Amino acid sequence: MTIIKAKDFTEKLSKAGHVRYTKQNASLGKYGPKNPKIISLGLGDPRPDTFIFSEVSATVANLYNKDGSSDSTDSAQTTISLSEKKSPGSLVEGLDVLLQYGDGYGVRSLLGYAKNLVKNSHCPQYEDWDVIISCGSTDGLDKATDVFLNDGDNIIVDEYTYINAIKTFEAKSYNQVSVGMDTEGMIPEELDRVCSNWQGPNPLKAIYLIPTGQNPTGTTMSLQRRKDIYSVCQKHDLIIIEDDPYYYIQFGDAPVADGETTLSPEYLSKLPGTKNLLPSMLLFDVDGRVIRLDSMSKLMAPNLRTGWITAQKRVIDVIRAHTDTTLIRANGLSMGLLSRLLLEEWKEEGFEKHVAFVQKQYVYRRNLLVKSMKERLGNMIEFSVPETGMFVWLKVNLPDEAKREGVVDELFEKMTEKNMLMIPGFLFSADQKNPNVKDIPYFRATFVYAPLEELDMAIERLETVLLEFGCKK
Amino acid sequence: MTIIKAKDFTEKLSKAGHVRYTKQNASLGKYGPKNPKIISLGLGDPRPDTFIFSEVSATVANLYNKDGSSDSTDSAQTTISLSEKKSPGSLVEGLDVLLQYGDGYGVRSLLGYAKNLVKNSHCPQYEDWDVIISCGSTDGLDKATDVFLNDGDNIIVDEYTYINAIKTFEAKSYNQVSVGMDTEGMIPEELDRVCSNWQGPNPLKAIYLIPTGQNPTGTTMSLQRRKDIYSVCQKHDLIIIEDDPYYYIQFGDAPVADGETTLSPEYLSKLPGTKNLLPSMLLFDVDGRVIRLDSMSKLMAPNLRTGWITAQKRVIDVIRAHTDTTLIRANGLSMGLLSRLLLEEWKEEGFEKHVAFVQKQYVYRRNLLVKSMKERLGNMIEFSVPETGMFVWLKVNLPDEAKREGVVDELFEKMTEKNMLMIPGFLFSADQKNPNVKDIPYFRATFVYAPLEELDMAIERLETVLLEFGCKK
Repeated sequence: MTIIKAKDFTEKLSKAGHVRYTKQNASLGKYGPKNPKIISLGLGDPRPDTFIFSEVSATVANLYNKDGSSDSTDSAQTTISLSEKKSPGSLVEGLDVLLQYGDGYGVRSLLGYAKNLVKNSHCPQYEDWDVIISCGSTDGLDKATDVFLNDGDNIIVDEYTYINAIKTFEAKSYNQVSVGMDTEGMIPEELDRVCSNWQGPNPLKAIYLIPTGQNPTGTTMSLQRRKDIYSVCQKHDLIIIEDDPYYYIQFGDAPVADGETTLSPEYLSKLPGTKNLLPSMLLFDVDGRVIRLDSMSKLMAPNLRTGWITAQKRVIDVIRAHTDTTLIRANGLSMGLLSRLLLEEWKEEGFEKHVAFVQKQYVYRRNLLVKSMKERLGNMIEFSVPETGMFVWLKVNLPDEAKREGVVDELFEKMTEKNMLMIPGFLFSADQKNPNVKDIPYFRATFVYAPLEELDMAIERLETVLLEFGCKK
Repeated sequence: MTIIKAKDFTEKLSKAGHVRYTKQNASLGKYGPKNPKIISLGLGDPRPDTFIFSEVSATVANLYNKDGSSDSTDSAQTTISLSEKKSPGSLVEGLDVLLQYGDGYGVRSLLGYAKNLVKNSHCPQYEDWDVIISCGSTDGLDKATDVFLNDGDNIIVDEYTYINAIKTFEAKSYNQVSVGMDTEGMIPEELDRVCSNWQGPNPLKAIYLIPTGQNPTGTTMSLQRRKDIYSVCQKHDLIIIEDDPYYYIQFGDAPVADGETTLSPEYLSKLPGTKNLLPSMLLFDVDGRVIRLDSMSKLMAPNLRTGWITAQKRVIDVIRAHTDTTLIRANGLSMGLLSRLLLEEWKEEGFEKHVAFVQKQYVYRRNLLVKSMKERLGNMIEFSVPETGMFVWLKVNLPDEAKREGVVDELFEKMTEKNMLMIPGFLFSADQKNPNVKDIPYFRATFVYAPLEELDMAIERLETVLLEFGCKK
């Protein structure tokens, strides 16, 4: 078997990336203690015996019970604990380590878990890949772009994309080059066209993608689309930042089950679980050009602020140096509790069950909203049924007489008057200089937050609004 | 009473700061729900009833007991909890809020606590100051500098300063202008001289200071020194970044109590507690030019990654926009547990007691190390007794025949051979281009980490090393 090594992209490093890679990467190591006999008056760490918490416990929410679908074995509440020092036989660090300073990689137990999951789920083809724990994928995105991009550099983005990415890129003075999308996300031919015709001044260096359940459009790239996009990126030598927070909320080809109020076992068996998920772009990555951002926000809870970044080792080295000197590392309580839960409490089986639960919750909500939209709105809107994630992206079919400047803001105002709201699509456009974008009646509707019984009510209100604008069913 | 408003420094904003201030500051507000009747299909937040933890508890470490100094009322273990929803009568948010997305300010309970503490401790003189919760002061520093500094801008630093500050500034291509120090930290006359003679190309925009227990030199600015430095900064219109993680570890003028193995009540009464601490530079800040960084790392535990930033509101607005779009906010578990502890469990009295405990621990260690250094090393080294913090900064008095290129590395090698180590001072120098700095025999010794009984042993080993280099007692 041939061992594939990642390509060396160090010549593409940003100024900051170059400093971190060449000068800061493990520079203090020389002055650390080399053997345990050394009494170190070096490190500025406080002693663990002055740490304020000596035990931390968390009750794992009884999610299956809440759902009314538990069997008796699920009904007992589970509590996980972190103790002052590592327990004998446990894989998880004690609070003496979890609450201490340490390097940017994060604690070794969670890092090991993440590496194993990446390996089993996405099978990177090249050998020298590595992982670092992040404070969620939005933090990861900020650091990942810093590796390669300087002020004024170009980054390719979807026509409509994650609002915090747009804002971060804007603050860093990156030039955002947007590429058209269809129902599977970015169009490879469009990407190739933009890259082939690119005039500069600076080269196109990187591309930002959300391949699964894209925010805001809800689109998911098929396996073939992923391959095609990767090929175009290879052709034009682009670094790929793959932001994948909705990865586990895939519904596969489970249909919108009209009229079903509970989901049958047969229906649920169509959901992908952990075994039939679409893979990461890492699967095709023979060059080490993908920086993948994973997140626990949607699967566990957002403000645990924990995720991980996978990329070739050189890239992770730069991100680690960045983390070492700013955040230091991800939060110890979150890392410790997730480690305990994933490695020792759930293990593979519990994780699978949880992913199945989350997919079930969200597919049910998707079905409700989509059914309501189809029945109540008919031809007043256009949309594709999302196969992943949290969002339905829709375009209002306005009659010609309603197509006017400011109509999107008018629609928004009228919706809030009728006590419902969706987010106007232009807010997700990286191309804000284009004056037309403000008047294209795209909206993002989320099906995961509103109370179940209100989803249809919201669409009923929307129906009234659209009728007032002269839309035809 | 005249109300003082902060000066408007928006013309000093960096490119990123300007974008965040003018474009990103609360830009989504317009599209949020305006009344509770609105069914929002807007926000991309997951529902709290899918959050993985339904209760989180922490046992507050029995620190006083460990110390052998508790009275009976201290011996019961205290456990604090965060519940699924806010408990009636509690000030602290439930996990439904703590573990959810939210704005960059952080949760309101801890934010309120921090504001109150800042107000009572540092009495800012101008009216429009504000606070944001940070992920520790190293993260805060990264964000604070981003507000005003571009690539290539100048930042004034101490001759020797915090290593992660140096590295962050280096990665961001800031030009670090170092100013000489004495036993009270940066010398105001030196600062004035550097500023008055400054030739550019860019102006001097900001200054980075650690006024209390400076890392690595252990120096603490007196009240007068703080005033003088503030005046010079005013004269040259500098933004002041005040990094103050050791603020609560002040020892006042408690002497090095030779030979005392336990500290008498009389001795302990000399420690400043919370009432006699030196104030922040905020106390003199009539202009709103100070950005103060507070940290819980040394007082509670480092990897809770929690602190706060105080500055004029316009500056906090920029840092909030930065946080909103990258980290989102500080970790929910840490914020929640600290809120419960500080606001409801300890209250003012418990906090005072804890600060007294920490001061006692560290002054005892300082005394041990300093006593050992004085007795064993005599004139072989020079140092000042630190009145704050964790560090003793010492210079080895090498005999002339040992003053040679590479001697600091030789000393370090010999120390590790003898099984002790301190960090060579040049690692903390911002002026790394100066070839001489590598051969000035400064070292930083930390007294907080090594086991108590090993502090003197480490110095005994150091004695052997220094004798081998021909140093004279």
